[in-house]
Amino acid sequence: MKIALAQLNFHIGNFDSNTKKIIAAIQDAKEQGADLVVFPELSVCGYPAIDLLEFTEFVELCRLSAEQITESCQDIACIIGLPTPNPKVQGKDLFNSALFIENGHVKAVVHKALLPNYDVFDEYRYFEPATKFSCIEFKDQKIALTICEDLWNINDNPLYLAEPMEALIKESPSLMINIAASPFAYNHDEERVLILSDNCRKYNLPLFYVNHVGAQTEIIFDGGSLVFDEEGALLDEMAYFREEIKIYDFVDGKVQSYTPVVHNPQNDIEQIHDALVMGIKDYFTKSGFSKAVLGLSGGIDSALVCALAAKALGPENVMAVLMPSEYSTDHSIKDALDLVRNVGCKHEIIPIKEAATAFENMMRPVFNDLPFNVAEENIQARCRAIVVMAMSNKFGYILLNTSNKSECAVGYGTLYGDMAGAIGVLGDVYKTQCYKLANYINREREIIPENSIIKPPSAELRPGQKDSDSLPEYDVLDRLLFQYIELKKSSAAIIAQGFDESLVRRVLKMVNIAEFKRKQAPPILRVSPKAFGMGRRIPIVGKYLS
Amino acid sequence: MKIALAQLNFHIGNFDSNTKKIIAAIQDAKEQGADLVVFPELSVCGYPAIDLLEFTEFVELCRLSAEQITESCQDIACIIGLPTPNPKVQGKDLFNSALFIENGHVKAVVHKALLPNYDVFDEYRYFEPATKFSCIEFKDQKIALTICEDLWNINDNPLYLAEPMEALIKESPSLMINIAASPFAYNHDEERVLILSDNCRKYNLPLFYVNHVGAQTEIIFDGGSLVFDEEGALLDEMAYFREEIKIYDFVDGKVQSYTPVVHNPQNDIEQIHDALVMGIKDYFTKSGFSKAVLGLSGGIDSALVCALAAKALGPENVMAVLMPSEYSTDHSIKDALDLVRNVGCKHEIIPIKEAATAFENMMRPVFNDLPFNVAEENIQARCRAIVVMAMSNKFGYILLNTSNKSECAVGYGTLYGDMAGAIGVLGDVYKTQCYKLANYINREREIIPENSIIKPPSAELRPGQKDSDSLPEYDVLDRLLFQYIELKKSSAAIIAQGFDESLVRRVLKMVNIAEFKRKQAPPILRVSPKAFGMGRRIPIVGKYLS
Repeated sequence: MKIALAQLNFHIGNFDSNTKKIIAAIQDAKEQGADLVVFPELSVCGYPAIDLLEFTEFVELCRLSAEQITESCQDIACIIGLPTPNPKVQGKDLFNSALFIENGHVKAVVHKALLPNYDVFDEYRYFEPATKFSCIEFKDQKIALTICEDLWNINDNPLYLAEPMEALIKESPSLMINIAASPFAYNHDEERVLILSDNCRKYNLPLFYVNHVGAQTEIIFDGGSLVFDEEGALLDEMAYFREEIKIYDFVDGKVQSYTPVVHNPQNDIEQIHDALVMGIKDYFTKSGFSKAVLGLSGGIDSALVCALAAKALGPENVMAVLMPSEYSTDHSIKDALDLVRNVGCKHEIIPIKEAATAFENMMRPVFNDLPFNVAEENIQARCRAIVVMAMSNKFGYILLNTSNKSECAVGYGTLYGDMAGAIGVLGDVYKTQCYKLANYINREREIIPENSIIKPPSAELRPGQKDSDSLPEYDVLDRLLFQYIELKKSSAAIIAQGFDESLVRRVLKMVNIAEFKRKQAPPILRVSPKAFGMGRRIPIVGKYLS
Repeated sequence: MKIALAQLNFHIGNFDSNTKKIIAAIQDAKEQGADLVVFPELSVCGYPAIDLLEFTEFVELCRLSAEQITESCQDIACIIGLPTPNPKVQGKDLFNSALFIENGHVKAVVHKALLPNYDVFDEYRYFEPATKFSCIEFKDQKIALTICEDLWNINDNPLYLAEPMEALIKESPSLMINIAASPFAYNHDEERVLILSDNCRKYNLPLFYVNHVGAQTEIIFDGGSLVFDEEGALLDEMAYFREEIKIYDFVDGKVQSYTPVVHNPQNDIEQIHDALVMGIKDYFTKSGFSKAVLGLSGGIDSALVCALAAKALGPENVMAVLMPSEYSTDHSIKDALDLVRNVGCKHEIIPIKEAATAFENMMRPVFNDLPFNVAEENIQARCRAIVVMAMSNKFGYILLNTSNKSECAVGYGTLYGDMAGAIGVLGDVYKTQCYKLANYINREREIIPENSIIKPPSAELRPGQKDSDSLPEYDVLDRLLFQYIELKKSSAAIIAQGFDESLVRRVLKMVNIAEFKRKQAPPILRVSPKAFGMGRRIPIVGKYLS
């Protein structure tokens, strides 16, 4: 039997496009001799559709798409994913389902049992868990078909009481197929291989695993679909960050011939780079936009976003706006212009002094002689936001946000100022990772100007300002933040690791009181196991522990 | 037996304050001769603590608080709510629990079985559902103690397969107690009485129900704790929107003597009014702030927010900023000043012309001779945001957002402009409800100037602009929006109700393409069954149905 894995990029709610893509892939696989084409979880509607699933019209359109796909699936079989109505009155109204379709008929329907609800997941909000399980017979094989999380309950602290494979194994299946929507994080590729390999060993079965690829606002899918033998040995790993359809010849319980393992030899930074490029690209493509604007300061973060956007959208579609103030240093303009030249994007220079002076004059009767402070600093950052948003409103550019994760964490940014933007490109990338990313982008030739990388970071909102005036060095800060954000450690536990006590208390307090700012931040491209945004839900009004 | 219901206002994560409040209430009830004091669901930590529950330190502080409460609970019993660790390795790590404490000892622990995960709820994200149930014996009574949603599975389309009361009723309890965290919506009071009354009739048992009161950022609890007899007759309803401890004498299976039913005779608008006042007040009190700032346009929405804020915080703590532009009409200033006088708050007049002109000049080299459009309109709205945020940054005022639900729905507002603010006061109040709210506030004397109520709504961002230039009349718009937002109807279903087809398509499209704006809106005080914010999760990048 020839099994095709169709690792494709779907568009949430775009039934027309998703259905055409599925039907074309079936046709393509059939022409290559495949017996079965496997698509990812909820492929018909895209993932995650969140509350669109609560519209009955949405579920009905899923059904109609599945009908079209069923009709077109002749002389071949396929597995697709979609929400289906729960026929019972008790329980939630939907199942997260897989249809096994053969020769124009739905041969079997499988429902997902383990519904993730942590981090970015909300599946139990919509779906009733499956309680019955049975294998599917096809071409003398017995397939144990499961959906994503159904194979993930295999660790020392299992989240769920149910074990779908424990039921399925009783029917003596000959292989496992798992359809997934498993989001990217820089550490996810290794975890995925371990968990799935454990399943193969535990059940002594080979496994075909197909994942989504592509970005859905903040959530990025890397693909990396997998094939294992019954001993859990990794036979093949499909492409990262691009669509691919690959066919495997499965005979006598073995994958008979396959292209040698091409384990995508990417380190974390390479993966983050590719994820961010795909994240930007899909945000624009799927929203129907093509042109981006951003404020370019001469610093490393905006330089990175500019380079990534140029890679994703083409430099001709990127407009960098330099907005010097009286506190900008000469090298800032030069470094920004060097970047523009290296990247080849468009640029404008719009100084903000006139607007900043206007606000100074307007506020004088109220501010009187109160000293220059964060109010005046923020006025500058907000004047810049007005300029880039005016470019956006006048010309249809979409504003990219350039805040990094370290800044987002400690609230080192101006709400409605540099925190503005449609999508946060670096909001899940710590400052120390930004440096590594810059060096990676510069691996063949200088794109990010060396000076942007080596100079001390500064917001340049008052004379001689440096980030290090109010923040610890980033290598210390980032390690500290990782303990609190990613690992959810208490201040006591972090101090016990050797961090300075007063520093820990100061930084954790900064993180906590910035919740109200992050609530209004743009969606952030998620590349880590714990990104700010939908996967981290902290009360705004509350008393924090630290 | 005397049962006290302690309907109190807790502060998420403020263990010190919550614990003191619980201990004081126990002491108070004991002095009044109570045998048992009942506190609401998760009273020890506040509700909803969301991802704070993922910090082990948070759960440990709950345990320590419960120890203190247990220690202080002598010669009386109490029921408190808190998260407790799940001792089994399989399943989620926490239960949503109630402790029954008597004479310094924990006598029983009850876990919640039905974990709501719709709308604003995320409980299955943290908690393992209970599967075992037993009654608690106390003073010759057998109590069927349940937690909130555990009594809510009683309708024609039950969400859950489990039925905790079906297990408990087998032990022949003599009364039901339910501890709740059931958020306010203007239609919730009636639904709550119906559901709970149904339980009494179904199980032929009296019921004591205690709810939270107070606001937690966007989520507002109205209190309204209830007592029913075994036939489902409502015996008493406690106060709305304020703390109350009330004692009931329960003898021979009957509530023997009680103050007569004081069903808080509030219509929807009165409830919304009180909810918004409490929402503002608690946002400030629990955040440690006291002073609010807002932009006052002369229109009805900002007038309403100003009046509500003055009621919540005291007029002396409200700063209204008038920011006329060249497009502001004379009556706008007059109407705003009338409101300031009626409310008695502080005000400043800061015209924005100088800043708007500065941006015009700055953008001229890029905009050239392109005609005035939304770009220039938004510049004005954003200049106003800079002014009020400068007031905030310089003087510590917290900015109140004044956008109403109709505007939020169709995206009729400027991101980083009039959409700015720490908390959205009217974001869940449709424009037509705003008029009713204004009339209610004016019920005794004119506070909202009559002219702000009767004049045609306008953003005044270009000469002679009126909302009706780009939006349908609000009474049509709001009815249409209700069908789409609250009822999740399809465009076809809405058109079938008699709405104009092209209007429906235009409005639904406006709602859809404003998702990216709403993502960055402030948290909105929730007063309806479907508010924008955490209870409505729609993909930003997706293809919408309408």
